[in-house]
Amino acid sequence: MRLQRIIIYRASKMDMLWIIGLGIYGVRGLSLHSLDVLRRCDIVYVERYTSSITDDELHDLDRLIGKEEGKTNTIVVQRWFLEDGRQILEKARSMEIALIAYGDPLIATTHTDLLVRAVKKSIKANVIHGVSGISSLVGETGLHMYKFGRTVTITSEPQSAVTVYGTIYDNLILGNHTMVLTEYKDGSEEVFFLDPKIALSSLLELERDQKSGACHEETFAVIVSRIGLKDEKKISGKIKSLISQDFGEGPHTIIVTGLFHFAEIDALKALTTNIDEPTDNTSHVHNKSANMIERYVPKARTELSKARSALENEPTSTERGRLTEIFNNAENYIEDAVRFLRTGKLELAVLSIGYAEGLIDAARTGE
Amino acid sequence: MRLQRIIIYRASKMDMLWIIGLGIYGVRGLSLHSLDVLRRCDIVYVERYTSSITDDELHDLDRLIGKEEGKTNTIVVQRWFLEDGRQILEKARSMEIALIAYGDPLIATTHTDLLVRAVKKSIKANVIHGVSGISSLVGETGLHMYKFGRTVTITSEPQSAVTVYGTIYDNLILGNHTMVLTEYKDGSEEVFFLDPKIALSSLLELERDQKSGACHEETFAVIVSRIGLKDEKKISGKIKSLISQDFGEGPHTIIVTGLFHFAEIDALKALTTNIDEPTDNTSHVHNKSANMIERYVPKARTELSKARSALENEPTSTERGRLTEIFNNAENYIEDAVRFLRTGKLELAVLSIGYAEGLIDAARTGE
Repeated sequence: MRLQRIIIYRASKMDMLWIIGLGIYGVRGLSLHSLDVLRRCDIVYVERYTSSITDDELHDLDRLIGKEEGKTNTIVVQRWFLEDGRQILEKARSMEIALIAYGDPLIATTHTDLLVRAVKKSIKANVIHGVSGISSLVGETGLHMYKFGRTVTITSEPQSAVTVYGTIYDNLILGNHTMVLTEYKDGSEEVFFLDPKIALSSLLELERDQKSGACHEETFAVIVSRIGLKDEKKISGKIKSLISQDFGEGPHTIIVTGLFHFAEIDALKALTTNIDEPTDNTSHVHNKSANMIERYVPKARTELSKARSALENEPTSTERGRLTEIFNNAENYIEDAVRFLRTGKLELAVLSIGYAEGLIDAARTGE
Repeated sequence: MRLQRIIIYRASKMDMLWIIGLGIYGVRGLSLHSLDVLRRCDIVYVERYTSSITDDELHDLDRLIGKEEGKTNTIVVQRWFLEDGRQILEKARSMEIALIAYGDPLIATTHTDLLVRAVKKSIKANVIHGVSGISSLVGETGLHMYKFGRTVTITSEPQSAVTVYGTIYDNLILGNHTMVLTEYKDGSEEVFFLDPKIALSSLLELERDQKSGACHEETFAVIVSRIGLKDEKKISGKIKSLISQDFGEGPHTIIVTGLFHFAEIDALKALTTNIDEPTDNTSHVHNKSANMIERYVPKARTELSKARSALENEPTSTERGRLTEIFNNAENYIEDAVRFLRTGKLELAVLSIGYAEGLIDAARTGE
């Protein structure tokens, strides 16, 4: 059996709100069926907040969708207009209108909210997805999409790096890559983007404080800049090397890699400007439980050995026997902790080392 | 400052391998610049393994890119042809050729491998990304992209569900959504897809065995079927309700949700066929450490209380004093464990309860 696509092209108009993804390549990245729709629409809103559409491209758009013949009405709108949304929804009740947004439009919550509001108000609405920047940049690095953990955004607010550091940590513990989107705002005239160097510096600063190994100078990362644009750049290397690079204008994305498939290493070397050999960042990250075991096992062994030496001072052989039994038991639990750590049963390892310490300390109480 | 797009259109041909994403909407989903390139190419390979391009669409494609005038040569290829890749790479040395692949092409490792091999062999290669099925279906559910943890694929092999169950568990512990792609193969004539009901059944079976709460009958999930196709379906509800639904032909994707933003609940209700009220799946999932504490704290309290009652049988007041000191200490550690559990410091909670148990057991040894 063969499948049939959603048929979007219709000759006749109807009242409808179309949310159309521009993708990442500008107006010539629009698809044939998006153009079919746009040419029919009474109003075409173009969202400039998350996109960076040039004035030349706007003219191209007007030409492509036939404004010159007075057929359509292209209007550039700002974020507040979409967040408010009342005008656009009202128009869609009696006209066929479209909103063009950068990338895949439903990745931005503003556009999803608009769609949900339309559905709730029984306004007909339809989405034509566009090429996603996020999906594209994962592919461009050669990293495997399915190995990414939770995505996070770093902004210039001081608290932001704390969340990002925590997400990188959580992802690394599971062997996952982390995509860190950097703040980017394209308002009306002014474009603000957070320099990856500033983002990396705040993460290094947190590392000095938290010491969990999630993001330090030896950590391997990839910086993808200006995906889909003429001067797109992909640079990979250790943070200590990346921090002296010039990444130019944004938007930028930082990827902190986790466990590699060998094909990913191969691809990173071929597809990015690779400064340092890709290394496994998970080997540096300190799992809290593993850290505990590594700290407590030698400590418990020393205490146990001291306690055993003190046995000869015990006055009665009954007491010596009782204590020896406890110490042998403690020794077994210390070895259990080591074994559980090795087999990844971290909770049992922590429980065992805690128990062993309790046995030893109780035996020594009152001495 | 305004940005400039990558300029892909050139009037003159050159030797080059183009990897072009078809997106999810069939041939009318091709962009203007993809068509510019395709019309120029000497050979256009169409990949049918991950896609499901119809014969009608192939004819449309031929017409669009001008085969009728003898300009191009469209060839449908199977997976082995791309995995082998030698012929396609060899042709690209002396011709301009394109490979059209479903969705965003670099999400499939076969296409990335081909690109990497081209780069290594100094064959010019370029990618035009397409609309990604994964990105689209996330948007279509109204769930927030950045809240997804690691993605996983479920196949009909028995071992597969174990990995999937583990990934859902890991994601839920962090509050993340999980995208579970289901096996889908479109070979030459035969289309195989794994029914979501079979996938859900194997996960429920694992739950009965592992009991970690990652995927049981009350778990809320979303099934997205045939994204981008005419009969696209999105159904959300508890697994016990989903398991009696008819999802029809694939491809299907299962999303097991984590912690919701309130806007996600709103969107799920508006954008999907919603059977049950969306509920928080993370409240059912049992963290191994938390489980331990919840099991061991009452046990330790009972043992401590028994040990205290036995104190009066102690012959000497020195021994009674020594033991009382140990028991008071154990009691403090039990309360520490409860407090650490409440504040999310699970490792310390496990260490404390282990220590308390060790103290109590050592005090009772030899009695």
